Amino acid sequence: MSNPTSSHLVGLIGTGVGPSLTPAMHMAEGRAHGLDYVYRPIDLTSLSLAPERVGEVLTWARMLGFDAVNVTHPCKQLVIEHLDAIDPVAADLGAVNTVLFTEAGAVGHNTDTTGFAHGFTEGLPDARLDHVVLVGAGGAGTAVADALLRLGCTHLTVVDLDVDRASTVARELVGRHPLAQVDASSFDKLSILLPHSDGVVHATPTGMAAHPGVAFDPALLHPDLWVADIVYRPLDTALLAAARAAGCRTLDGGHMAVHQAVDAFALITGLTPDADRMSQHFRRLATNQPR
Amino acid sequence: MSNPTSSHLVGLIGTGVGPSLTPAMHMAEGRAHGLDYVYRPIDLTSLSLAPERVGEVLTWARMLGFDAVNVTHPCKQLVIEHLDAIDPVAADLGAVNTVLFTEAGAVGHNTDTTGFAHGFTEGLPDARLDHVVLVGAGGAGTAVADALLRLGCTHLTVVDLDVDRASTVARELVGRHPLAQVDASSFDKLSILLPHSDGVVHATPTGMAAHPGVAFDPALLHPDLWVADIVYRPLDTALLAAARAAGCRTLDGGHMAVHQAVDAFALITGLTPDADRMSQHFRRLATNQPR
Repeated sequence: MSNPTSSHLVGLIGTGVGPSLTPAMHMAEGRAHGLDYVYRPIDLTSLSLAPERVGEVLTWARMLGFDAVNVTHPCKQLVIEHLDAIDPVAADLGAVNTVLFTEAGAVGHNTDTTGFAHGFTEGLPDARLDHVVLVGAGGAGTAVADALLRLGCTHLTVVDLDVDRASTVARELVGRHPLAQVDASSFDKLSILLPHSDGVVHATPTGMAAHPGVAFDPALLHPDLWVADIVYRPLDTALLAAARAAGCRTLDGGHMAVHQAVDAFALITGLTPDADRMSQHFRRLATNQPR
Repeated sequence: MSNPTSSHLVGLIGTGVGPSLTPAMHMAEGRAHGLDYVYRPIDLTSLSLAPERVGEVLTWARMLGFDAVNVTHPCKQLVIEHLDAIDPVAADLGAVNTVLFTEAGAVGHNTDTTGFAHGFTEGLPDARLDHVVLVGAGGAGTAVADALLRLGCTHLTVVDLDVDRASTVARELVGRHPLAQVDASSFDKLSILLPHSDGVVHATPTGMAAHPGVAFDPALLHPDLWVADIVYRPLDTALLAAARAAGCRTLDGGHMAVHQAVDAFALITGLTPDADRMSQHFRRLATNQPR
């Protein structure tokens, strides 16, 4: 934030964050703004640190001169008790992915949800949001759900393998967005839901390099449905390929991945990043990188 | 060291390091080489960390992605037990001011002593070293003494208010440099020593902004004596002014301050820094900064 030398030091706390493209995105954008900007992955796995030690990591990061950290799986909830303040959007969501070390202490934000919203507006600007199905009610899915409801979705159906989890998430979403209709459902109801929906967001790990496949039957896709995937490794998932073949408009996971970084960069530096430049850089890296 | 992104993260551990010019020197030189280079002061005083916790600071710095740290008062000795390896020059001296985090672990170096030697060669290139008097046998003085003996000084007299400390340092120096004559003496003998010496190095805190004055009687200065001060805040001390008035060649403390950073930058990055550029930058900062 207020750094006399215009230098910025940022970290990414989580398990298995070594291959993340977020550090490279931030540093390239920092360089383009003429900043000294160093962004380090802090991989709890390779450091043999239990996720419950996130508070300690936060304390030391602050003492050693970090200006901010991004926080990812499995620390987005765990980190909250160690904060001095929390942005209302992140507080509602109960998940923090960005912590700024300010004079007022450690302040939590969530740019996953703002990032999904910005990426969605960018990639599917006039998509209908009357009835959207969300497949996957984990942390990422919840951030997406909040974003969809803030974007004006009037009816959201949350589907998860764990129907209890879907119900809990749906109940919490209604609590935060009382004007919207939010319900929970199961995978076997997708054949009834999707034909009448405007869009579907996929937010499970299926389709990632380590979990190949498509989470639900692609035969349910139809040309009046838009399809958003939040998986971004690979950028072009089997789901998106099937959606294109079915004539759907699509949004790949790169939009959310880039815009969570765009929004975090803006919070950390107080500057307006060039989202197109960051997106181009990300897509170059994502395409060249081994999967 | 081997960083795929050409980014470097360095810290300075010590008490009261907030106003140090070393971070700015490193970052400007890093920028000139096109590196992402962030250098953070880690001020034990303002963090309320006891110097004995330097090992813990080192561990966390390494875990959070630092490539190296400089270490200054009062941790240059304390840090040694926490290292995995130590450069022979630093080991001899028993003091470390630079720690590199390498694949082989934390490796200690001492660029105070190499920095004094390089600064001396730069600023007083053909100075006679047959008999040199060192005033001040603390950590900085010891690093200077080692450098003088490696530069070819054949007779070194160590003077300190604490004559026992001077004797101990002299004895240790003889052990490391058996071909040289090293003896200890007291302040009241300076009137006998200085008239027959080639040069004198001042390494006490006297002359610093918080300790104004001159450590010994300037009337003892004479035109055949060179005078080096290691105080660099201010750069132009009362001792140096008196020495110029007496017709002495002089070397200010900026040379050592710059070259310890030059040598550390080279160790950290594997690149050859531009010592003149770093010196000009340092002198601009040192002149403009409030004392």
